[in-house]
Amino acid sequence: MKPSANQLNFSGGPGALPESVLQQLHTAMLCVPETGLSILGISHRSEWFAQVVHELENNIRQLMGLPSSTRVLMMQGGATQQFSMLPMNLLRNGESADYIHSGYWSGKAIHEAEKSGRLQQAWSGKADQFSRLPSDAELALSKDAAYFHYVSNETVEGLQFHRVPGLETVPRICDMSSDLLSAPAEFNRYAMIYAHAQKNIGPAGVTVVILRDDFMNTLPDDLPGFINYHAQADAHSIYNTPPVFAIYSVLLVTRWLRDEIGGLHNMAQRNQAKADCLYQLLDDHADFYRGRAATADRSKMNVVFNLPDAGIEQAFLQAARQAGFSGLNGHRSIGGIRASIYNGLEFAATEHLADFMRQFHKRYRIPATSKPVLSQAYA
Amino acid sequence: MKPSANQLNFSGGPGALPESVLQQLHTAMLCVPETGLSILGISHRSEWFAQVVHELENNIRQLMGLPSSTRVLMMQGGATQQFSMLPMNLLRNGESADYIHSGYWSGKAIHEAEKSGRLQQAWSGKADQFSRLPSDAELALSKDAAYFHYVSNETVEGLQFHRVPGLETVPRICDMSSDLLSAPAEFNRYAMIYAHAQKNIGPAGVTVVILRDDFMNTLPDDLPGFINYHAQADAHSIYNTPPVFAIYSVLLVTRWLRDEIGGLHNMAQRNQAKADCLYQLLDDHADFYRGRAATADRSKMNVVFNLPDAGIEQAFLQAARQAGFSGLNGHRSIGGIRASIYNGLEFAATEHLADFMRQFHKRYRIPATSKPVLSQAYA
Repeated sequence: MKPSANQLNFSGGPGALPESVLQQLHTAMLCVPETGLSILGISHRSEWFAQVVHELENNIRQLMGLPSSTRVLMMQGGATQQFSMLPMNLLRNGESADYIHSGYWSGKAIHEAEKSGRLQQAWSGKADQFSRLPSDAELALSKDAAYFHYVSNETVEGLQFHRVPGLETVPRICDMSSDLLSAPAEFNRYAMIYAHAQKNIGPAGVTVVILRDDFMNTLPDDLPGFINYHAQADAHSIYNTPPVFAIYSVLLVTRWLRDEIGGLHNMAQRNQAKADCLYQLLDDHADFYRGRAATADRSKMNVVFNLPDAGIEQAFLQAARQAGFSGLNGHRSIGGIRASIYNGLEFAATEHLADFMRQFHKRYRIPATSKPVLSQAYA
Repeated sequence: MKPSANQLNFSGGPGALPESVLQQLHTAMLCVPETGLSILGISHRSEWFAQVVHELENNIRQLMGLPSSTRVLMMQGGATQQFSMLPMNLLRNGESADYIHSGYWSGKAIHEAEKSGRLQQAWSGKADQFSRLPSDAELALSKDAAYFHYVSNETVEGLQFHRVPGLETVPRICDMSSDLLSAPAEFNRYAMIYAHAQKNIGPAGVTVVILRDDFMNTLPDDLPGFINYHAQADAHSIYNTPPVFAIYSVLLVTRWLRDEIGGLHNMAQRNQAKADCLYQLLDDHADFYRGRAATADRSKMNVVFNLPDAGIEQAFLQAARQAGFSGLNGHRSIGGIRASIYNGLEFAATEHLADFMRQFHKRYRIPATSKPVLSQAYA
């Protein structure tokens, strides 16, 4: 059976969501079964919605193995709002924080945070064009930092930390926007984790923020409500009207992870299989499909590669679109090709893509003595 | 034909949306016709979405009769974020702003704004338990205020300004969260207007912010991006990943207003008819259904009233639920009954409610000499 357009959506984000979640949201648009009302017309102060948030908080704690002494918040404003909220909350009195600059998104985090506080660069991958991640030995970490910040997965460059960097004595804060809930991890080693939903967790418009109680207690409580973690936590994410639809969507994704997938361990196996499928293909045709990331730092979420030149890349993208794939263009900042293989994408989709890439490679003649020429099939 | 649950949804917000919009969103959950993809899996950097925002900005300008020298932004964080952003942008150097305190929501605006700047109270309705709005003569306005702020419609108390208060020489800023796009108004007399979507405009999770260019030019540009109006405007609301679904929903509502309703003049006539239907019923049974707002200040969006005592109010709400109505409970801060009759609610629904209220009044025996007793029908 030919997969649907949604099933072949390799978008870097907002990304594909699981088919069964989309089906439930399709129904909920007209009628949420328990309420009889459209999800868009239900009060955020209803008993039903309080229960949605309650279950969602618990599902996330359960999936991630977090103790009850952890707050789980649903906020607005994306990771970008968190970029600023961190220094606005933690660097008000001249303190300094350590940041790893490992790619486009950690660069954005630094750019925003610098407007509100003093930062130290623990490492930068700029000299290597963000093609690899640092070793522990390369990190310049301060014992006195107010916090240490990094991005676990760089979606643009396709780099992912496969260990937990940083000192245990400094609050560790991680932007896991593009890999939270994609695999188990030592989540209890973090003071704070945040992730916008639109990769693995739900639609754009809601951000999951997880705070350990002991860290939360160090945060100020005199900031305006919309940037006050205490106010948001005390209100269980209903300080003011929250994005009801987006939060309900995230609830359905956590149920899917728990009941259909069977938890993060199983999710990680599926994601590993998808990544293996595509990276194996890159390695088998390394002269043609040129992986961007250092092998040890390859992302299991974003497979980023180049073709021999920009003209061939355009031909590849055009042929891919014609074959039913979408979202394969690289990030606008660096171009190239990017296959994002978030939780919602099925293994079969990566097999389809690998087949397509093998065919594209075959049909593409590279005469030994001249510039590559498109075969008729892709001219 | 018996109306659906969505058609009898009198929720104070998130409120009922038009049936034809819900149908299109139902379809878009699986496939937006122009793209073939679920609305939840479409990139915010796609051509398609840029066009969505472009059309939406223009639709709002056209519906409201705004000149092209007006910015139309879609932001996150609700009106609550705007409550704080105003002083954070405009009162940084010790300036003061004038605020009218006319009810629950203007009180919230003041509560949040006070955390970030100096405010003067232009008038307070507290002594009258927020049962009426001020005359122009009662307003204590400063010529030197950085801006003047009020809430056009108080949803909790059912009060609505039917004129434009404030000095023409001071930037006028209005929270129109609960009546924007419900009727025409002299919108060009405002420096800034904002409104969260979840009453008349769309689902929770997006806020419409309208800024006149001359006012925009007075705002600082060195704030972090998420609270920087310049950054948001320059990026046409795509500074970072916006709430794609919510914005698309608002686009569909503006198309509905333009194409199915025929503009704000027609919308106002429909809303007037709904309000007349319910207020006439209150006036006809003024001893039993006791309207909360002074007659001259009655809201055309929220019809708020009490019954003879709290026990009867509970019986009313229970009977209403059994009859298929939802969302009629008053705001948790004051109790009582509230019928919210936003754009998406059809006139027929108010007729159904009026019929129900007439029947409830009839069946409810009030013996001349004793406490009111429920008849069997509603016991």
